[in-house]
Amino acid sequence: MSYVRNAWYVASWTQDLPATGPFAVTIMDERIVIYRGESGRLIALEDRCVHRLAPLSLGRCEGEQLRCLYHGLLFNPDGTVAEIPGQDQIPAQARIKSYPVVDRHSWVWIWMGDPAKADPAFIPPAVGPDDPDWLLGHGHLQYDAEARLINDNLLDFSHLSYVHPDSFGATESWARNRPKVTPIERGIRVTRWMTDQPGMNGRESEESKVKLRDRWTTYDFFVPGVMLMTGGTFPVGTAKALNYEAPDLAKAEAGVTFTSQAISPVSSRTARYFFSWGPRADQGTEEIRDMLMGIARKAFDEDRVIIEAQQKVIDQTPHVKIMPTTSDKAVVLYNRLVEKMAREEQALRSESHAV
Amino acid sequence: MSYVRNAWYVASWTQDLPATGPFAVTIMDERIVIYRGESGRLIALEDRCVHRLAPLSLGRCEGEQLRCLYHGLLFNPDGTVAEIPGQDQIPAQARIKSYPVVDRHSWVWIWMGDPAKADPAFIPPAVGPDDPDWLLGHGHLQYDAEARLINDNLLDFSHLSYVHPDSFGATESWARNRPKVTPIERGIRVTRWMTDQPGMNGRESEESKVKLRDRWTTYDFFVPGVMLMTGGTFPVGTAKALNYEAPDLAKAEAGVTFTSQAISPVSSRTARYFFSWGPRADQGTEEIRDMLMGIARKAFDEDRVIIEAQQKVIDQTPHVKIMPTTSDKAVVLYNRLVEKMAREEQALRSESHAV
Amino acid sequence: MSYVRNAWYVASWTQDLPATGPFAVTIMDERIVIYRGESGRLIALEDRCVHRLAPLSLGRCEGEQLRCLYHGLLFNPDGTVAEIPGQDQIPAQARIKSYPVVDRHSWVWIWMGDPAKADPAFIPPAVGPDDPDWLLGHGHLQYDAEARLINDNLLDFSHLSYVHPDSFGATESWARNRPKVTPIERGIRVTRWMTDQPGMNGRESEESKVKLRDRWTTYDFFVPGVMLMTGGTFPVGTAKALNYEAPDLAKAEAGVTFTSQAISPVSSRTARYFFSWGPRADQGTEEIRDMLMGIARKAFDEDRVIIEAQQKVIDQTPHVKIMPTTSDKAVVLYNRLVEKMAREEQALRSESHAV
Repeated sequence: MSYVRNAWYVASWTQDLPATGPFAVTIMDERIVIYRGESGRLIALEDRCVHRLAPLSLGRCEGEQLRCLYHGLLFNPDGTVAEIPGQDQIPAQARIKSYPVVDRHSWVWIWMGDPAKADPAFIPPAVGPDDPDWLLGHGHLQYDAEARLINDNLLDFSHLSYVHPDSFGATESWARNRPKVTPIERGIRVTRWMTDQPGMNGRESEESKVKLRDRWTTYDFFVPGVMLMTGGTFPVGTAKALNYEAPDLAKAEAGVTFTSQAISPVSSRTARYFFSWGPRADQGTEEIRDMLMGIARKAFDEDRVIIEAQQKVIDQTPHVKIMPTTSDKAVVLYNRLVEKMAREEQALRSESHAV
Repeated sequence: MSYVRNAWYVASWTQDLPATGPFAVTIMDERIVIYRGESGRLIALEDRCVHRLAPLSLGRCEGEQLRCLYHGLLFNPDGTVAEIPGQDQIPAQARIKSYPVVDRHSWVWIWMGDPAKADPAFIPPAVGPDDPDWLLGHGHLQYDAEARLINDNLLDFSHLSYVHPDSFGATESWARNRPKVTPIERGIRVTRWMTDQPGMNGRESEESKVKLRDRWTTYDFFVPGVMLMTGGTFPVGTAKALNYEAPDLAKAEAGVTFTSQAISPVSSRTARYFFSWGPRADQGTEEIRDMLMGIARKAFDEDRVIIEAQQKVIDQTPHVKIMPTTSDKAVVLYNRLVEKMAREEQALRSESHAV
Repeated sequence: MSYVRNAWYVASWTQDLPATGPFAVTIMDERIVIYRGESGRLIALEDRCVHRLAPLSLGRCEGEQLRCLYHGLLFNPDGTVAEIPGQDQIPAQARIKSYPVVDRHSWVWIWMGDPAKADPAFIPPAVGPDDPDWLLGHGHLQYDAEARLINDNLLDFSHLSYVHPDSFGATESWARNRPKVTPIERGIRVTRWMTDQPGMNGRESEESKVKLRDRWTTYDFFVPGVMLMTGGTFPVGTAKALNYEAPDLAKAEAGVTFTSQAISPVSSRTARYFFSWGPRADQGTEEIRDMLMGIARKAFDEDRVIIEAQQKVIDQTPHVKIMPTTSDKAVVLYNRLVEKMAREEQALRSESHAV
């Protein structure tokens, strides 16, 4: 599996950064230290001193700089060395990589590819817990599985019927319904109407869950692994009346929630999974948000159990191929997009080397 | 070390299968799911969905079928796919391996080789805890060691004097006595008379342990690693009077017990060890059985400690060869038999590929 | 990194050997069993029976001999086999390696190279807890890091300013001071004057720590990784008056302590670190010794944290080179010495093979 390098990867929830001091993350096997200079700006560097390779994440912030707490070398935000204690000259090669880093939508985004191409316009239009229109909770999980398997899981909601019948209260309809899948810029869009549906856990009150409705769900899934989803329920007949086109969510009668989910590869066999969920501010309360987050934690742990088990089987039978089904349309399209972008990047790199 | 594939491997004590739902085992690095259909029959399949390779052992039994609880594919007992939710056609290649499986003598046996050759007549004539002639307890241990090392241990009882002097009360005689080793169908037989012996723990009462006797022991050790052993004590002089031939165990004065032990390779460095032990029903009580099982658990843990330690040394010094001694006669003959059977299987496979 | 094999490696503090029975250590990936014969002499053998490779460290001492507690083979102190139970003849190849071993300065030293070259004169002139001139405590740590990284750490005290500002109370002066580094027989000597210094934790009383002094420190670092260090403080001006040559420590006004530290490679990624520390007997008390050991345990754990983290970065970025600084003079000279000795050994071995 290829990864796209020229993309913004989620490194952390902004809220989960420590109040002071450096913070270590690993993305695609690269150890990165993130810290906030006294000016408030975020800085991301290779997490490795040039001297004896000690991790800078065990170091100390000094103004906009970061000092290695092994033998005291001091680093500038651009990765150059400002000071070697007891030594007058700084060699030219004394330099580590500096990563483009942006704090947006409550996520810390790191650009893993060519810094010259790091355009913040490529950051997906997420909504963070700080957005006043929504009441969002947030969390994250560590996975002992390849990031791609988590992407695949989120691109095929037929698993809801079998993995989440209790947590989300998903019926068999999820497995039989085939959504509309369309390409968008740097991603794909998955929309579906499910008609004559009972309510789902958390999104409708217990009393009203028996009442049937038409359910609309839509999500955009962006490279390198960011899902933004919303939806709501409408009176039975709405889908048909709209000829199964997108409804106006402002007119939904219930169940309008938003969730953002992002997957970052840590190593080839581990990943970090970030998620938020909550109701629209005008429809919900903090109690509803917390109830939804309780459901989400249970459901996302169900995903983790099956995906980590899947990874173990894959590792033990590396020669066995998967067999896609009709439910994999979005999975196939998304992975094809990733392969194409990765190939193009590779071609560009070869070209620039040839020059 | 080669393994024989055309053989019945013990997967579990029947009593240890869950009352409902699938059960995961691994034999020779193959992940297998076992379940009981609603008809009561046992079914064993590859533990891997054809779709995205999730383990079926996390699935749900439905009648005689097993449903994957990732995206809902339903499997028949023969490994074919009965249903792909939301998809009309089932591709021909949608099939996993089905293993011959038999429930006999309280053991679940799985045939790891060519299914066409899976003859239940090859199942060793074990005696299970359900046999009314014996009062047997049962248990199992997980080993961090290659199955072969456990086989070797059981084929050379000279270790009793040094590993089990306390648990079994074994004297030095075990290390100096050389048993008679004879080939049998798919195995070898090890018999021995030990004359003028004091009693052993569990098999004689404390008061009578000082009295000397002639002790008869016999066991058959079958491919792929199943030991069936019995024996008893007789008045001093019996061995000589019988010219050291086999006695009539019905005339033994004490100590008639039976033990079955089976070793199944899990991976190249792990194994599962199943064991039973107990007195003949007309000579014993449940108290005696439980006392024997207490001794067995202590003794088999002593074996585990030394064998796992041996495995670590082997792994760290892979170039060092073992040096067989005269006590290894049964070990050498049994391993030669295994090598021969494995070679013949290999030749047959090459032949059938050539046709 | 090469290691010198013709050298004495510390296997244990003598005080930490068990009162009876064998003791397992691993040095440079070789498993070794140490035991004391009934005569009191130390014996060190390969920890592996010739028969089925079980570890002898699970065995039983019998007089000057060691019996394997798997099948009972009995080994002589020279590694030959004295007895195979039930077998009359002992094959000539039934022999394991015996290591030269010496108990000196409260350390058990094992010679890892050619036994013919094992001269106890090569044992560094350490001082043990049994020496009446000093009041020394002792301890050890297990490291998940290569031994060389711990050597490097001890050869460059510029880390004191950043790793041990709290535990040792080290100031920035340590990072800026450049010691005198001189070659000695099988090692190097590192000496330094630090002038106008405040006191350090443990070596001066709290009241007197504000008073400035000239501080003298000297240590010898011997192959394969043994550091012997002492020092003391003198009135300001002493260093200059002595033209920065070595002072007479008997005239020190305070802070005369001794520490011995030894690093033994266990595997390529693990090591054992032995240490002692304490005041001169005429200057200290057991309370001062225990207080120093408390500081040492805290400080050496600070080293362990940064060095194990450094090892992880090295393992993850194996292609990245270190960049020596001026503070690495002793590190560079010592490692050059080790490389030279290792090369000479290698040449000798090739020569003797060629003969």
